[in-house]
Order: sequence, then C-alpha cells, then structure tokens
Amino acid sequence: MHRYKLTIEYDGTPYVGWQIQDNGLSVQEVLRTALKNLSGEDFVPKGSGRTDAGVHALGQVAHIDLSKEWSVDKIRDGLNYHIRPAPIAITKAEAVPEDFDARFSATLRHYRYIIVNRRARLTIDRAYAWLVPRPLNEKLMHEAAQSFVGHHDFTTFRSTHCQAKSPLKSIDAVSVYRNGEKVIVECSARSFMHNQVRSMVGSLAEVGMGKWPVSGIQTAIEAKARSACGPVAPAHGLYFLQVDYSAK
Amino acid sequence: MHRYKLTIEYDGTPYVGWQIQDNGLSVQEVLRTALKNLSGEDFVPKGSGRTDAGVHALGQVAHIDLSKEWSVDKIRDGLNYHIRPAPIAITKAEAVPEDFDARFSATLRHYRYIIVNRRARLTIDRAYAWLVPRPLNEKLMHEAAQSFVGHHDFTTFRSTHCQAKSPLKSIDAVSVYRNGEKVIVECSARSFMHNQVRSMVGSLAEVGMGKWPVSGIQTAIEAKARSACGPVAPAHGLYFLQVDYSAK
Repeated sequence: MHRYKLTIEYDGTPYVGWQIQDNGLSVQEVLRTALKNLSGEDFVPKGSGRTDAGVHALGQVAHIDLSKEWSVDKIRDGLNYHIRPAPIAITKAEAVPEDFDARFSATLRHYRYIIVNRRARLTIDRAYAWLVPRPLNEKLMHEAAQSFVGHHDFTTFRSTHCQAKSPLKSIDAVSVYRNGEKVIVECSARSFMHNQVRSMVGSLAEVGMGKWPVSGIQTAIEAKARSACGPVAPAHGLYFLQVDYSAK
Repeated sequence: MHRYKLTIEYDGTPYVGWQIQDNGLSVQEVLRTALKNLSGEDFVPKGSGRTDAGVHALGQVAHIDLSKEWSVDKIRDGLNYHIRPAPIAITKAEAVPEDFDARFSATLRHYRYIIVNRRARLTIDRAYAWLVPRPLNEKLMHEAAQSFVGHHDFTTFRSTHCQAKSPLKSIDAVSVYRNGEKVIVECSARSFMHNQVRSMVGSLAEVGMGKWPVSGIQTAIEAKARSACGPVAPAHGLYFLQVDYSAK
C-alpha cells in the first residue's frame, strides 16, 4: 500500500461541503470519482477536516492509498485531468509514510475570513467574501480577538449540531487587520469545532460595529451558552488556508 | 441639468462588455435600466472607455445627467438597489461640473492583468485570472515591458477591429511583478486601443516563458504588424482599475 498526501484548493460554492453527504455533491465525492477514473481503485480520500457548504479551501489536505506506486506528478496531473471542469484542483501530491493521517497527524490548522467593509454591494467577490456595510473598527476587533487565544470552553462559539465530545479547545493565534476595504481575520489552532471560526468572526464583527464592547468577546466566552454568540458569519467568506504537520 | 460621475465595479463574466450591443446584455444597458427605474429618465451612461466581454472593472467611470438635483448618496444607493442582483456596483457617486466628460476629461487610465503561474487548474480564480502553467520569469517580463513605455506605433498590439484612427499611443508606465503564484502586469496610459493591454500581456508572457528574448518586445513594436504580436491574453484576467482626471 502506498499513501499519498494531496493539497487541495476548491471553490466551495457548488458543493454541499467537503464531506460526502446524501443531499448533494461534495468535494470528497468529486475526488473519489476522479481517483476511481484515474486508478481504477475505490478509495474515499480522507480529509484533514470538514468544511461547510460554500466554504472555500486554498490548502485542504487529504490522504489517499493506492495499491501500486505512482509518480506524484502523475497523481496530481491525472487527478486534475479527471476532476475538470469542477472548480477543484490538486496543487500538490506527495508520497508519505503509511502512518501519515491527514486528520490525526495535523498539528495546526489555519483559516482566513474575508470581510468587505463598504456600502456598495459585492460584484467579483460576491461568493468569496462577506459584505458588512457598517464601518468596522478592525483595531478593536483585533484587541477583542485576543480573548480567544488560549484554552477555553467554546460552547458559545460552536454549532448546536457540533459532534465534538468536548467544547474545550485551544486557539493559538487570531489576528484582524485591514487591507483597503477588506477586513481580514486569520485564526490558527490544532483543531476547530463546527462553525467555530464563523461564530468567532460574526461576534468580532459586533465589536467592530460598536454593538459590543471589546470585553464582549470575553463575556461571551464566559457565558458558555450558544445564545451568547453573535450572528454567525456566512460560509462564503471563509477559506481553509493550510494544515501543518510535524516534521518526522 | 445636473451631471454626476459614477465609479463602477463589475464582474465582466456575464456581459458582452461595457458598451450597449445587439448581441447580448452589456454593463451600460444594466445601468441605463437601473437609472430609468430610479429616476424615470432615459439617459445612456457615458463610460470612460469600453471593456470587452469578460473583462472586469474595479474603477470604471461614467457620467450621467439628471434633470433635477439628487443627493449623491441617493444616486449611489438607489442605483445599487435597482441594479441587483447583477454583479455591478456603484462604489461612488459625485456631483461634477457640466463640462466633465468621463471619456474626454480622462488624463490617465490604469489596467491590471492577473496571471496565475502554476500547473494546477484554477478554482476560485477561474473567471478572474489567466492560468499559465509554464514557469514565467517575471523579471525578464518587467525588463522587456519597459520597451512599451513612451510614444510608439502600436499597430502590432491592437486588434485588427480597432477603430482608432491612429495607431500612435503613449504608455506612461508598465510594471510586472510576482506575488506568490500570481504574476501581475500593471499598465497606465492616457488611452488604450482595442485589445492593446491583452496583446501586450500575451507577448510579455512569451518573454516570460523564454519563447521570445527580452528584445522581442522591441522587435515586435518595430514590426508594426499585427502578425508580429504574441497570442492575445484572455479577457478574464484583465481589470480596468482606475481613471484619473485632472483637478480643476
């Protein structure tokens, strides 16, 4: 058995999300079909984590197993050939040891959320960013976001459908900065719960608009209640950026 | 009569281009209809210049005339309301003197072209950049691009359908730089001819791939023949960035 690590970019717009589901086409299903057409083998690619419908990825990671050895160039180009015209691309394929697991070997996951902060509607970015018309103070958002860093009970900031056993998570870093009319939130952690980043961003936007004080994030964390969360930011502003693995 | 300057952003994907045409929906037609629905007046917005089908704009400019005075906020928000859900947005409306002309008062026009330089197919950017799989040397492209600067006969670099009387044009600045896997070409001039930027970018890509020497751009200019042009870069990588007007 030969294991390969795939780095995957996708436009989440036309998919029900990463994970194979009954209610529509998933990224995982497209990759499974492409792999079957390329290799003749039926293997469900194992992702580093799920993404919701509409969420994009610049660096999702999955692993696949193949019975014979392949050149990584053939895997990458062959999968891309069979994937088209779907807006999914394998940007990198690498041979990895058999004990590499895209999900369980991950040490850090990075997400980016893009807000466009202006009155006018979105055009080019309409499926790739969240429009917040009311002026945002990104400096206050950044200050408030530091309350997320560290080990906390994130009950307030996870979906009621989240299947994780424990609401305890550690956030390594959050930063909020402005680039012209864009306000960008970047967040890194070993793992995230369902809707966690979007819940955090939606609450930070409340701070940015002045509806919540800077201390509101700390208050919301301490409430340990989903009802204390701000509005959840929409899926289409979220990008799964990168997954880190420890060097072996 | 009251004249207003509009700054307009649009996704060129679903349009036949800026200009009203018989063969499909144009950006200008969408704006004309929105203006009619907002004000009851039938005025065709006069653009600073045409863009081809698929070309995007971040800062196209047009002027409109209205019989009564309007607040610029009402024009911007009202037009945006009537434009939706089309991917066109008025980002700014300003009152201007009656002798302001979006086309003839312009002193400098700025375009950006985005190339993604990698093997893997495009996903999120598939309608917003040109994929060039072969490695590009952007430094050589930048060096070669300097041959465009100045006053030249641009016969090689304009469409055979171009209606301009003279092929003589002045380019103020061209720069080529890399940002990760993106290679970006930016170009500024008082005015451009039909397909000029895309012709220049397509020829610069020949230099970047090593198919043409750096001196190939100079040679192509001197040929003064359309047949000496490289392949024309596709429309969907091109952005009409900004129009400058002299302060009065």
